Order: sequence, then structure tokens, then C-alpha cells
Amino acid sequence: MRGVGWWRWWAANSRASHSSYSSPSLPLLGPNLPEVWSFPYPSISRPQSSASLQTARVMDGKSIARSIRSGIACEVNRMKEATGKSPGLALVLVGKRRDSQTFVRVKLKACCEVGITTLVEELPEECMEDELLRVVSRLNGDPSVHGIIVQLPLPKHINEEKILDVISPEKDVDGFHPLNMGNLAMKGREPLFIPCAPKSCIELLLRSNVEIIGKRAVVIGRSKIVGLPTSLLLQRHHATVSTVHAFTRNPEQITREADILVADIGIPNIVRGNWLKPGAVVVDMGTNQVKDSSGFRITGDVYYEEAIKVASAVTPVPGGVGPITISMLLSNTLDSAKRALRFTTK
Amino acid sequence: MRGVGWWRWWAANSRASHSSYSSPSLPLLGPNLPEVWSFPYPSISRPQSSASLQTARVMDGKSIARSIRSGIACEVNRMKEATGKSPGLALVLVGKRRDSQTFVRVKLKACCEVGITTLVEELPEECMEDELLRVVSRLNGDPSVHGIIVQLPLPKHINEEKILDVISPEKDVDGFHPLNMGNLAMKGREPLFIPCAPKSCIELLLRSNVEIIGKRAVVIGRSKIVGLPTSLLLQRHHATVSTVHAFTRNPEQITREADILVADIGIPNIVRGNWLKPGAVVVDMGTNQVKDSSGFRITGDVYYEEAIKVASAVTPVPGGVGPITISMLLSNTLDSAKRALRFTTK
Repeated sequence: MRGVGWWRWWAANSRASHSSYSSPSLPLLGPNLPEVWSFPYPSISRPQSSASLQTARVMDGKSIARSIRSGIACEVNRMKEATGKSPGLALVLVGKRRDSQTFVRVKLKACCEVGITTLVEELPEECMEDELLRVVSRLNGDPSVHGIIVQLPLPKHINEEKILDVISPEKDVDGFHPLNMGNLAMKGREPLFIPCAPKSCIELLLRSNVEIIGKRAVVIGRSKIVGLPTSLLLQRHHATVSTVHAFTRNPEQITREADILVADIGIPNIVRGNWLKPGAVVVDMGTNQVKDSSGFRITGDVYYEEAIKVASAVTPVPGGVGPITISMLLSNTLDSAKRALRFTTK
Repeated sequence: MRGVGWWRWWAANSRASHSSYSSPSLPLLGPNLPEVWSFPYPSISRPQSSASLQTARVMDGKSIARSIRSGIACEVNRMKEATGKSPGLALVLVGKRRDSQTFVRVKLKACCEVGITTLVEELPEECMEDELLRVVSRLNGDPSVHGIIVQLPLPKHINEEKILDVISPEKDVDGFHPLNMGNLAMKGREPLFIPCAPKSCIELLLRSNVEIIGKRAVVIGRSKIVGLPTSLLLQRHHATVSTVHAFTRNPEQITREADILVADIGIPNIVRGNWLKPGAVVVDMGTNQVKDSSGFRITGDVYYEEAIKVASAVTPVPGGVGPITISMLLSNTLDSAKRALRFTTK
């Protein structure tokens, strides 16, 4: 290896991984390539795009989500025919938060469309932690339930960590259990579930033919459910990942080095055009409610109108990673049911 | 917060965290500061050190290790007096690898010096996986054992992952269980154990009064037991972390941005002086055997003679993180015994 010249070897691997991306089954955990260090090697000059004169490609999450969901619906159908059973998802909702109710409704509708059976457990805002623990334990033991989601956030008197830890890792379709997160972090291991939003980010990149291996990726944000697992997942795909957060000095200096920029900040339009490297691929994970003349609208973390002039590809908000995220939940639930029922489609 | 000016707020937090570092109990998981995004803010000009004319400070791991070990010995003594029991560490050695035998011997000696009871389980090279699993299960159930180490690497016919997963997370003093790794990765959570080498790196930085918060840190390498958890731990301390690996293009461009550089590569002397930013702090986690006139000697990943002219502080190899790593194993075992025996020193 070391005699071959690092760049030739990289190029060969890069082609190999690229061709696999076009296959129907996308490698969400990244190609399993050996870690071979080789120095010195010639510099690779990266082509500088003249994208500032162009308008970026808009990566349309809706159409990707449609295609994924129709595939899932087919698989669910085949499962029903072969086993007489459907994948089952349980949603646990504590209290009456409007936003949580909306999220649960959206998930129920998506499940219904692909034939996943659902079960909703509603508990009052003032329910005791033990009561919630008992509900989760019961669902853990229910063989018709293949996935359990406890809608977050929980009321303040309930210890969220304790609840999430009790969900069986085999039914943790949100991928928030530390055992699944640990297995995602550790190269060579396979988590049972990858959190839906990060999985959606990678799915979007792969389906948009964005090469990840060897690229500089910068993730702004390190939340447990989005930023952190997205960094881990990009690294599994052999990107060189930097994580920017609230304690980072001069974040825009770092983001300007990114071939792939992922934003998970929670502040509308904070990522300006001058934060981007020309030709970068920008994935906006933000979903911020902002007031407008007609009430509220959802906007991302990236200043879309500026980004589109600098980047080579951008996700819109809404209509970017959001719809794919729900599809990833369906996909995780299907995967779980397949494992439980020992059902394979091949 | 957002009106105060990001830099003033940062400076205040930075001072607070600095003062806590000088306390005897070092915050190995980083100060628990809220994630407050605030833009825009004035640029902070970083003082450029004129270190190229100086010789770097050598961070002496041996003396730090001595001080930690004497503290542990005192605590073990107090535990014995109060409870009549000592911390117990079980070491499992499969086969007759010379290097593994040496590592086990070093650990036994260190335990002996601080009063930790040890137990060695030796199995033949050709032992079956089930046999090893039974040994680990027995140790899991033994109340006199507070820590279990299965010396790696295992023979090829044994599934390492399966064995490590069976070690009780409560006795996983190596910190390699995915549950502990997941809890290390997830901000706000507390792993029961942090892997010893990364913990040693942070301990060395804190005890050398190197500020981590807000600094650019670059970790070269992403191994499950060193590079990856070191990145996670530096991020817990609010550094802006980039991870460089075999698929990174032009790694030296990225390392030259590092205020703190950690090398976990496994290639002797690969990190040259021109890979470093003047004034950087360099932690060399490499332990490579190289031939010399008298047989073999241990050398790091960093070209020490060059680094010392550019950096502001460097660890030697041997005598850097190595001795502290063993101390961290002792510290993890003591912590485990404290939890099991409900013993507190205060």
C-alpha cells in the first residue's frame, strides 16, 4: 500500500465506494475500509468550483422520501403476505404539548401510509415517572411492538435519561439508547438503529451522489439526537469531521473549509453565505418557527437565499431532511420487525 | 446572554473553569456549561507564540503519575480501614503473547503498589469462546472483583466484540463497553468509566494547566480505544475537535490549525515539526517499537526533536501519557470499588 502512492489508492477506493452508492441498498454505515496510513504522498489539488456565479442544486427531500416510502410499503406488504404480521410502532405521549401532538400525528400518518401498525399510549402531564417506566416495560415485552418512541421533551419532573435507558435497545427505533449510540461511535461495530435525522442526512447525501469519503465535513451543533450522531455517521463514511459548537471561536473560519456543511444550531438563518466555501454541499437540519404575516412558518439555520449563490447543493427547509427523517423512522421500524420475525426480503 | 457579548461571557466562563482545574479533583468530564449560541460577536485575536525560537515545555507524565498513584494509595488505605475491603481487579489473559504478558505484569505491579487486590485468569491460546465467556460471567458475579480487564488482542478465533459486550458495564474499568462509550459521547450523560488512555490525555492537559475550552483540537487517529474516545472527551471539555484519519487529504494542513494536537497513529515519528502550529500543545499517544543498536526501543508518533522546537509543550515517549494511563486504570478500579461498597472519602 505505502509504495503504491496514497492518492492512487484513494482514487481507486473512491470509485469503488461511489459505484456502491448507486445500488438500491445504500451503505448507511459507510464502506468498511481498512485504516491504512501512508505518508508522504503528493498533494491533491481540489478543483475550485466557480459556483458563486451559479445557483446551487436544490436537494429535494420530498421526492427522496416518496421513493423510500414506496419501497418500505412494498416490503411491509411482502412481510404481511409471508408472516401474517406487520411491523408495529408504539408512540408514547406525555402531556398535551401542541408541538409533540403534531409530531406524533405526522408519524402516525406516515406509518399508516406504508402499512405499519401503530399504538399510542397517552399519559397525563402530571403522571409519575414510575407510571411511564411501567408503560415502557410493558411495550418492551409486547411482541407485536417492534419500535418504541417516547415523544420528547418530557415534563420536567421526569428523568428523560432514565426513561430512554429503559427502552429495549432492540426496539429503540429513535436510536437514542446509549448502547446504540456507543455502537455507532465505535468503528467496526453495528448499532441496531441509527438516529433518524442523522440517517436522513447521510441518505440525502448518498442519494444526491455527494461523495463523502475523504471530504472535509463540518457539523455545527453537537446535540445528542442530531449533531453528535451526524458527526459520528459522517466519520463512519470516512469524512474528515470537525464539530463546531457554542464554544468555538470564529466558527465561520472553520465552516469555510467544509466540502460538506451540516447545520444543527436552532437559530434561524444564522449560517450566512460568507460562512460557506464555494461549491460546498449544505445540509440544513434546522427547523425553527418564525413569525410571519400569516402566523408562523418553519425556517432553517441556513440563510437559504445567500447559500444558494455560493454552494453547489443545498437542502430547503421545509422539504429537505425533514421528510426523509420520518421515512428513516419507518425504515428503522421495518428493520426491527424483520429482525424480530426473522424475515428477509431476499 | 446574547446582549452581553460572546467574548466577555466566554472569558468569564474560561476563568471559572480554569480555577476549577487547580482543585485536587479534576473535572475529567469537562465543565457542565450550557450551550448558548450567540452571533455575531467580535473576533478574538489569538496571541501567536514565538515558540519557534524556544524549546517546548516537556510534560512529564512520570511525575504526574506518581502524584496520582500516591493519592490512590491513600484512598485505598482509608477504604480498607473503613470497610475492611480493598478494590479488586481481575485480569484475563488468553494465550502467551509476550507483549500481552508484559502489559499484564505492569498492571499487576501498579495495583500491588497502591494496595489493589489482583486476580489473574490465564486461558490457553486455543480456548473456546464459551470458556472465556464463562470466566467473564463468573467475574461479573464475584463481589470481590470491582474491575475486569480482558487483555487485548484476543486470538483470532474469538469474537472480541462479543467478549467485551459481556463484561458488566459496572466493572468495565477499561471503558470499552459500548454502553460506557455511548454515555461518553452523549453530552450531559456520565459514563461509569472513561477509557484509560484518553482519560490520561485529559488529566495530563489539566494538570499541565493547558486550557481546553474553546481551543482547536485535532486528534490524528480514531481507534476505538484511543483516538475516538479522546475526540469525544476533548469535545466534552468544549474544545472544537477535528478528527484526522487515513482517509484525510492533506492532514498536515488541518494539524497546523491545532492549538492542541493529539497523535494516535501507530507510525513512528510521522508527525513532523512542519505539521504543528507554533505554540501548539502536543500529546503523543503513540507507542511504537523500533529497532536500534541495543535491540528495541519505544518511540512515539511525533518527531520529538522537531516538535520541541515548534510546540509550546510536548509529551515525551516513553514517560508521557503512558505512566498516567496505568494510573487511570487504578483510578477507575478504585471508583468502581467505591460505588460497589458505597464508600466515599469525604
